[in-house]
Amino acid sequence: MGKAWEDLKPYLEKMTALQTALTLFEWDTETLAPREAAPYTAKIVGILSEDYFRIVTDGKVQELAEKAAKEGRLSEVEETVLRELSEETNRLICIPPEEYRAFAELTAESAGIWAEAKKEQDFDHFAPTLKKVLDYQKKFASYQAKEGQKLYDVMLNTYEKGFDTESLDRFFGILKKELIPFLKQLTERGREIDDSFLTGNYDPGKQEEAVRYLAEYVGFDFSRGVLGESVHPFTTSLHNHDVRVTTAYSEHVDDSLFSVIHECGHSLYELGIPDELTQTLAGQGASMGMHESQSRFYENIIGRSLAFWEPVYGKLQEIFPQELGQVTVNQFVDAVNKVRPGLIRTQADELTYSIHILIRYEIEKMLVEDNLPVEELPQVWADKYEEYLGVRPENVSEGVLQDIHWSQGSFGYFPSYALGNAFGAQIYHHMKGQMDFDGLLRQGNIAAITEYLRENIHKYGKLKSSRQILKDITGEDFNPQYYVDYLIEKYKKIYEISG
Amino acid sequence: MGKAWEDLKPYLEKMTALQTALTLFEWDTETLAPREAAPYTAKIVGILSEDYFRIVTDGKVQELAEKAAKEGRLSEVEETVLRELSEETNRLICIPPEEYRAFAELTAESAGIWAEAKKEQDFDHFAPTLKKVLDYQKKFASYQAKEGQKLYDVMLNTYEKGFDTESLDRFFGILKKELIPFLKQLTERGREIDDSFLTGNYDPGKQEEAVRYLAEYVGFDFSRGVLGESVHPFTTSLHNHDVRVTTAYSEHVDDSLFSVIHECGHSLYELGIPDELTQTLAGQGASMGMHESQSRFYENIIGRSLAFWEPVYGKLQEIFPQELGQVTVNQFVDAVNKVRPGLIRTQADELTYSIHILIRYEIEKMLVEDNLPVEELPQVWADKYEEYLGVRPENVSEGVLQDIHWSQGSFGYFPSYALGNAFGAQIYHHMKGQMDFDGLLRQGNIAAITEYLRENIHKYGKLKSSRQILKDITGEDFNPQYYVDYLIEKYKKIYEISG
Repeated sequence: MGKAWEDLKPYLEKMTALQTALTLFEWDTETLAPREAAPYTAKIVGILSEDYFRIVTDGKVQELAEKAAKEGRLSEVEETVLRELSEETNRLICIPPEEYRAFAELTAESAGIWAEAKKEQDFDHFAPTLKKVLDYQKKFASYQAKEGQKLYDVMLNTYEKGFDTESLDRFFGILKKELIPFLKQLTERGREIDDSFLTGNYDPGKQEEAVRYLAEYVGFDFSRGVLGESVHPFTTSLHNHDVRVTTAYSEHVDDSLFSVIHECGHSLYELGIPDELTQTLAGQGASMGMHESQSRFYENIIGRSLAFWEPVYGKLQEIFPQELGQVTVNQFVDAVNKVRPGLIRTQADELTYSIHILIRYEIEKMLVEDNLPVEELPQVWADKYEEYLGVRPENVSEGVLQDIHWSQGSFGYFPSYALGNAFGAQIYHHMKGQMDFDGLLRQGNIAAITEYLRENIHKYGKLKSSRQILKDITGEDFNPQYYVDYLIEKYKKIYEISG
Repeated sequence: MGKAWEDLKPYLEKMTALQTALTLFEWDTETLAPREAAPYTAKIVGILSEDYFRIVTDGKVQELAEKAAKEGRLSEVEETVLRELSEETNRLICIPPEEYRAFAELTAESAGIWAEAKKEQDFDHFAPTLKKVLDYQKKFASYQAKEGQKLYDVMLNTYEKGFDTESLDRFFGILKKELIPFLKQLTERGREIDDSFLTGNYDPGKQEEAVRYLAEYVGFDFSRGVLGESVHPFTTSLHNHDVRVTTAYSEHVDDSLFSVIHECGHSLYELGIPDELTQTLAGQGASMGMHESQSRFYENIIGRSLAFWEPVYGKLQEIFPQELGQVTVNQFVDAVNKVRPGLIRTQADELTYSIHILIRYEIEKMLVEDNLPVEELPQVWADKYEEYLGVRPENVSEGVLQDIHWSQGSFGYFPSYALGNAFGAQIYHHMKGQMDFDGLLRQGNIAAITEYLRENIHKYGKLKSSRQILKDITGEDFNPQYYVDYLIEKYKKIYEISG
């Protein structure tokens, strides 16, 4: 460790401090802050963001980083931090500071406006804000783009290095080719599954009791975490000793149950980041896709399996004796896996889920590459849902306004969900060869599974890329076939389809 | 407005942004953050505090401030901001940056350690931290002290300009001389008051319903505020559109009812700061004493009066039909004014309250001026309570560990409570000559009283000192006799003592 690294450290610490403060403001805004606070708090967020921006783009910081790299004698963590810093600098240095600050102020308010619009089923209330957010993102991408690079590829790269429109067209092509015919087969030949009991007068207080129990059961550590409520469930991390998840309580009990297991997947990743990495630029998940692989792994591969529910379903029946007392564990697990092409992504079954993502992927390409006017979004959205899933939203709240992502400028994020599913299936295929997966679940030993994931994924933070992690675990590059095979095998069994 | 002021503005904005972030971390730590987060979050708080410190003590900022003052053409707000900046600079520039940061990190953790110690009734768990906090405060005061100035006077001056040990010795002297004999008279000759019904199985959920109702009734604006829970009730303000109060729910229903009315007094002050002042150095209350004058005004002068409860007591009975259904409004108001020399400051009646402060004032002088060892605090505390109030704590949680203040380094703060009471009584005496005070309360028209306080106090922020505000309202300087007269008149009536 040389002198330049020592001189660089205070700057890195300040970046971390500012990011943590911004994360806390975001958490607070989405869970607690009073309605009218937004424009005033947005100003604070703008100032802190601008300060972060100034450090990252400070010539002196760049100089120290380059010197530190030359001096060598750096640990693997330090080298990763320098790589992340350099990428962050390249991402930001091309953006004029006043535009960066204006964008930060805009997104500090935009989620609130989105939430209002969703509540009021009023797309027009959100459209001007969305247009501004999108225009900023396109402008920023144009600054960041290499010669001839597509703007949407720039955005995709922010969330998942090594994936672009070309590789995603291929990926979604496979899903389309294999899953759409299977979905048709299943709808025509599969048996009927009853899931009516999942909807009803489920008391929010009891739902909270249930999800707290499940969160602990899955391994969420309440001495290092918080469970809150927000319109759209999410996970955020201040550091590896303060990881927060939210959920929302509706009349569909499976919404809260599985969103919490999902967010616990994210949180276990963040809680599994070692002390050595947390509060550094290397102390987050490898990529958004890898993050989603973990959340969807817990939600679906673990959480929607019979083996998971066998030891724990009785507790759920205790909490909801009226609603679930007469429902067997098999009926419950079948119900939470019921395939029903629907309108809401977060309520989608595992099989149609990636179709929801495919729709968003296609629309994002249209918005970014084909300049689809924001005003046309409700129509395009509804048409695509009708075409791919045979359902049409009755209002924008169950249509284009259902997700928070675009309000925050996260264009290019959605594909990570589908990639995450596919990463998870590939890892799952390998893990089954290494351990008695279902046996562990039946023993309630989620910890053993988490331990494997921590040792092979979580503990690396950003030291390895998602593709490297996949290779090191499974011995091969990313291969979406595992995902398709997993889905078809799973649903053939549930729907009792032979051949 | 000249060039220098324009150049200074970004620095001022950053100070505000950092202070707001620190305020949010403090709120979050005391209301929500998970237990094990403290040391990691403390690091972030330390870095942000150090950054704030750097700006305030930056030679360039001082230079710009001096230039701006010379250039003139400044508004009253701008002049006040410059004055506050200069005072803040003088307060901090003498402290070595690494000591300032270390202290910020320490106090980010110390409230948590205090809370644990209080819960466990274990003074030894807190003593080493308290000693560190105190030592820092003494060291900082020694840096800040003018030639020959007492350290405790430096501390007092932070919270209340224009008051020192000499004036406070005089102030507390009057209280002692007049109130202690009166308390004796009241105990010997006053009638018996029953307040047993205030303690019982009061459901926390219903208490929350009641305090939410009361908060709105008093004028707390939930679109610009939040009500939370914490060990020790407090108010904090991010800006005039985000003001947060907390309470705690116990078996004594009056604890939550009156702590919320108290915190609403603080919050109405902060909500009454105009847009022009908020998010500037002039956008807080005039002083701690003036702030406490408002909280205690709402809690006691308004909140413990018969006229206040007449229109609203029925609602309380509706919420607690079993507990209060048979209790008349007169019995209720008598009960919440019952004088009972006790152990807990926040539960103290209005008459003995200032004796609790007197004890803390004397102990603070001993700690700071006479170097009383921290280890002896429980003993000294218990002895003083026995001497002045005739009660002795059975454990440290109801003794020296009851208040959060010292854990945060707020030595010299407590006297503000007593001063606030006295400010409030002086203002009240004047207001009664201007309006039908009780008549307004009986009509439920708290808004008219708040409007008067906003016009004469809140809207000025830091534009006027507390003494100036007193003078402008009442036409005279601070005069504690009003407070003494108010208390004796009030309690003679309640306890039916003639002569």
